[in-house]
Amino acid sequence: MKKFSIAKSRRIRSTPYTSRIEKQGVSSYTVYNHMLLPTAFGESLEEAYYHLKKYVQLWDVAGERQVEITGKDSAKLVQLMTCRDLTNSKDGRCYYCPVIDDKGGLINDPIVLRHNKEKWWLSIADSDVILYAKGLAIGYSLQVQIIEPNVDIMAIQGPQSYPLMEKIFGNQINELNFFDFAYFDFKGTKHLIARSGWSKQGGYEIYVENTSSGLELYDHIFEVGKEYNIRPGYPNLIERIESALLSCGNDFDNNDNPLECGFDKFVNLDTDVEFVGKNELIKIQSEGINKKLMGIKIDSKFINVSSSMNVYDLNNNIIGDLRSGIYSPHFKKVIGIVMVKKPFLNFSEVCKIEIEGESFNGSLCELPFL
Amino acid sequence: MKKFSIAKSRRIRSTPYTSRIEKQGVSSYTVYNHMLLPTAFGESLEEAYYHLKKYVQLWDVAGERQVEITGKDSAKLVQLMTCRDLTNSKDGRCYYCPVIDDKGGLINDPIVLRHNKEKWWLSIADSDVILYAKGLAIGYSLQVQIIEPNVDIMAIQGPQSYPLMEKIFGNQINELNFFDFAYFDFKGTKHLIARSGWSKQGGYEIYVENTSSGLELYDHIFEVGKEYNIRPGYPNLIERIESALLSCGNDFDNNDNPLECGFDKFVNLDTDVEFVGKNELIKIQSEGINKKLMGIKIDSKFINVSSSMNVYDLNNNIIGDLRSGIYSPHFKKVIGIVMVKKPFLNFSEVCKIEIEGESFNGSLCELPFL
Repeated sequence: MKKFSIAKSRRIRSTPYTSRIEKQGVSSYTVYNHMLLPTAFGESLEEAYYHLKKYVQLWDVAGERQVEITGKDSAKLVQLMTCRDLTNSKDGRCYYCPVIDDKGGLINDPIVLRHNKEKWWLSIADSDVILYAKGLAIGYSLQVQIIEPNVDIMAIQGPQSYPLMEKIFGNQINELNFFDFAYFDFKGTKHLIARSGWSKQGGYEIYVENTSSGLELYDHIFEVGKEYNIRPGYPNLIERIESALLSCGNDFDNNDNPLECGFDKFVNLDTDVEFVGKNELIKIQSEGINKKLMGIKIDSKFINVSSSMNVYDLNNNIIGDLRSGIYSPHFKKVIGIVMVKKPFLNFSEVCKIEIEGESFNGSLCELPFL
Repeated sequence: MKKFSIAKSRRIRSTPYTSRIEKQGVSSYTVYNHMLLPTAFGESLEEAYYHLKKYVQLWDVAGERQVEITGKDSAKLVQLMTCRDLTNSKDGRCYYCPVIDDKGGLINDPIVLRHNKEKWWLSIADSDVILYAKGLAIGYSLQVQIIEPNVDIMAIQGPQSYPLMEKIFGNQINELNFFDFAYFDFKGTKHLIARSGWSKQGGYEIYVENTSSGLELYDHIFEVGKEYNIRPGYPNLIERIESALLSCGNDFDNNDNPLECGFDKFVNLDTDVEFVGKNELIKIQSEGINKKLMGIKIDSKFINVSSSMNVYDLNNNIIGDLRSGIYSPHFKKVIGIVMVKKPFLNFSEVCKIEIEGESFNGSLCELPFL
């Protein structure tokens, strides 16, 4: 696979950690919310995967930007944007919330952090949710302030994140349940830490607001982390597909709705909360979906997905399109995420896909992978 | 300067032309509206600059996406989004329109194409304007349809674009004035062509809606273009800074307003049109701006701007921040775009900037450069 270099400019924003990861040997980037996101440090993805599953990594995921919504109508605006009922949400908790438009089409799938009922953060995937929030707030004349605050996340991921973070922040950090967040002190500065992250190997996300303290913390984590074999890392394509963590823009986009993506438990149509697209989703639910995200396992050792790839039945009918895929050391096959068309939702026969000119057999499965 | 590779995925969309430019030797990309945008073909930026000024280039600028707004309230919505008065706009014309929020902050600076009073395209710079449009339309209950249509622009830029395009489309293409657009036939398929483009070397933009015809046209342009010394190209950093074409995300962002960016003639506060942020801009205009985009010339042979760089006076006060810059063969100096703070708007003394550890002298100037 030919490599292309990335052209840097102010528009493709660096993070506070960019100069550090460049010293640490970052070799490849993607762009996420107009910001650099590392994708390799010279090693293979598989090496990084085994390391993540055994030890601990620090990820520069500052590209996971925050949309801060504050003010009298902030709860109303956040609820308007998502089909998940936030009526009983609690301060200090994270909520995975599909954000949809008036057609029910997905705009983003942020983690919503409820600081209190008049202060919310939407920790976003790769689209300008702030512009949607501003448009709605202006149109509905809501009393809110909407900003992108100066928050740059470091994720600490992997099983050794627990002893490492306990060593740094004390054992009160063990009281955080999954998707709780609270402030923890580092040398006199408070940092918001959530037990969350875009892997299923466990860990935390540190929402750094005080950049200089954050940089000191970054260095301290690597210092203390030596004994836990810490390395710089990044969201790992193998691990996230094995764990069936969906990626906005890869696995779904604005042409897909949350019912097609298996987000059913975050689609609350039976309560009386008001949100954009509700009637449309009710209609879709009653009529039934026309396509659905499923897993695929392919008898191949390699794949490189940079755009949709058709999946066929043995009669060359298109069953669906593969949107992400990678060789899985666990399943010893290529696994991937496919948007399957309605007539094929129960398709259990052999399917086919062409990889670099060669045809491979595969089979569909439900998500998550078993 | 160390190079980093770019990680491809479906989220970073390829264009219909990507496979062609990869055969033609593209070596570097940036990401623009979640899409690949070429930034080099192995040659130096300066070689490409001289070629662009003398011959003709075809640019894959599909990343310049369209937001299509149609329907009964479409004119109202487009006007709400921009401070430029479009009351007297005409079908078949392009309009450069700052899009602003309720604080007067810039969101984008698209070219607005008026097909007719119920069909508009916003040909956008790098931010998700579609989400702002959707938010406003939902909030104001406007009767519009908003989509990102299947449109992938090829730009034909450089002085030899005129004879080349005449040869392909006939001499009626010469009747297009700057910022006119019309449909032209290529082997039975109509393509929208505008006399426009992100250089000051002349040329056209072809808004390809029929992808297969567009690819045939792409190949045909290269075939016919041989005698005009055509090459694949891309928006050229040297040429665009010399021409003072501002770049959204580089030279300005949501923290800047159009009056600070010298867009005064596109800020129509004296008419009775309604748009978002109007009262805020009236207030800013009456109180005076606090900063302003200016040019700078620096006595250096090189610079590499990947984030804001401070510019100082001789007493080490920060005058402003450099946002773009490049060595200009024309001026035989580094030239750049600086956001200058209010006390220094008439600063005519020597200023200083540090480039790779060394201090260089410079001087501010008005834009465009003379």
